Amino acid sequence: MTIRYPNGKPYHINNDKKTSGNQLKKKKPSYSNRGMTLEEDLNATNAYYLEKNQAVIHKKPIPIQVVNVNYPRRSAAKITEAYFRKASTTDYNGIYKGRYIDFEAKETRNKTSFPLKNFHEHQLDHMQKCHDHGGICFVIIRFSALNRVFLVDFTSIHKWWQQQFKDDKKKSIPLKNIENEGFEINYKFSPRLPYLDVLDKLIAQE
Amino acid sequence: MTIRYPNGKPYHINNDKKTSGNQLKKKKPSYSNRGMTLEEDLNATNAYYLEKNQAVIHKKPIPIQVVNVNYPRRSAAKITEAYFRKASTTDYNGIYKGRYIDFEAKETRNKTSFPLKNFHEHQLDHMQKCHDHGGICFVIIRFSALNRVFLVDFTSIHKWWQQQFKDDKKKSIPLKNIENEGFEINYKFSPRLPYLDVLDKLIAQE
Repeated sequence: MTIRYPNGKPYHINNDKKTSGNQLKKKKPSYSNRGMTLEEDLNATNAYYLEKNQAVIHKKPIPIQVVNVNYPRRSAAKITEAYFRKASTTDYNGIYKGRYIDFEAKETRNKTSFPLKNFHEHQLDHMQKCHDHGGICFVIIRFSALNRVFLVDFTSIHKWWQQQFKDDKKKSIPLKNIENEGFEINYKFSPRLPYLDVLDKLIAQE
Repeated sequence: MTIRYPNGKPYHINNDKKTSGNQLKKKKPSYSNRGMTLEEDLNATNAYYLEKNQAVIHKKPIPIQVVNVNYPRRSAAKITEAYFRKASTTDYNGIYKGRYIDFEAKETRNKTSFPLKNFHEHQLDHMQKCHDHGGICFVIIRFSALNRVFLVDFTSIHKWWQQQFKDDKKKSIPLKNIENEGFEINYKFSPRLPYLDVLDKLIAQE
């Protein structure tokens, strides 16, 4: 019998091995990047590139539909009702060496492949359009359990995305293909994720 | 004596000429563009350009700091506490003919000049950086009382911005200078504000 809290959620006793084991595993920090998320690493990297005048690349704000705002007399406007909206583009864009840059950042706990369900159709559509207009589009994928990060060009991602709709085809990109088709980004102290170095290789291949 | 509502705001009687006159003036719709704001006109125009595959240009969402979110059982996550944050970039960016595009949209009710106080330092800084990296940066200014819209290149804006800090210099850009240095965008049925036509002239001048 499962014991439940008043809110309906089950109560897990500490020696319930299966659950507590999973919880511990999730909380275990990744020492090699000091528990930072990919987004935090990229934001710090973009701030570094901006300061060094190497590129102007920003994360776009999350789209939010504001419904109600309070304007207290002597303090900042407080939003009291709002909802998350679906993004129509990707997470990051900007300019580097005169080129339009557009990319999405994705993390997976998977160790052997990257599941394509992490993408949304509109993200692929947006990158396709930017690619067609001459932009440089790619995805930065972090395998968090392995702590390895790759930059994969949009054309590769698009090929795998299309392939999944055919019969008997994979719904994920195997790590070995990402190793071959993408470029690994090695963590540094500063900038943390030097993806522009890797992007130079991609541009050189064009 | 001023009569006041319980909330402290003054009560204006309808035949109080000065106030009601101003109120009427503000509410008067601009028939030539059917009362649309510049933002609405640009969003409709960008949607048109996206559909016709001419450019991929989006308005960035307003940055909001989310503090509290409720997750009701069977409905969408509701944000119950959030605050507006200061934007660090401009309103619009994207790609056109392989070029990085970055711009800000501004409206003024002024009839003879555009007050520079409408700009924020960070917007000029951001455009300067994008310009240095090879992007095309500009401002779209609408004189709402005249219903005239201009595209003004960043280099012109920057010149006027710098000039205001010198002694006895203007804190606004006279309309006649905007007419000379900028390009007027004429309203059409579709797209409403064909600013890419005007941008082509700007690119041709580079």
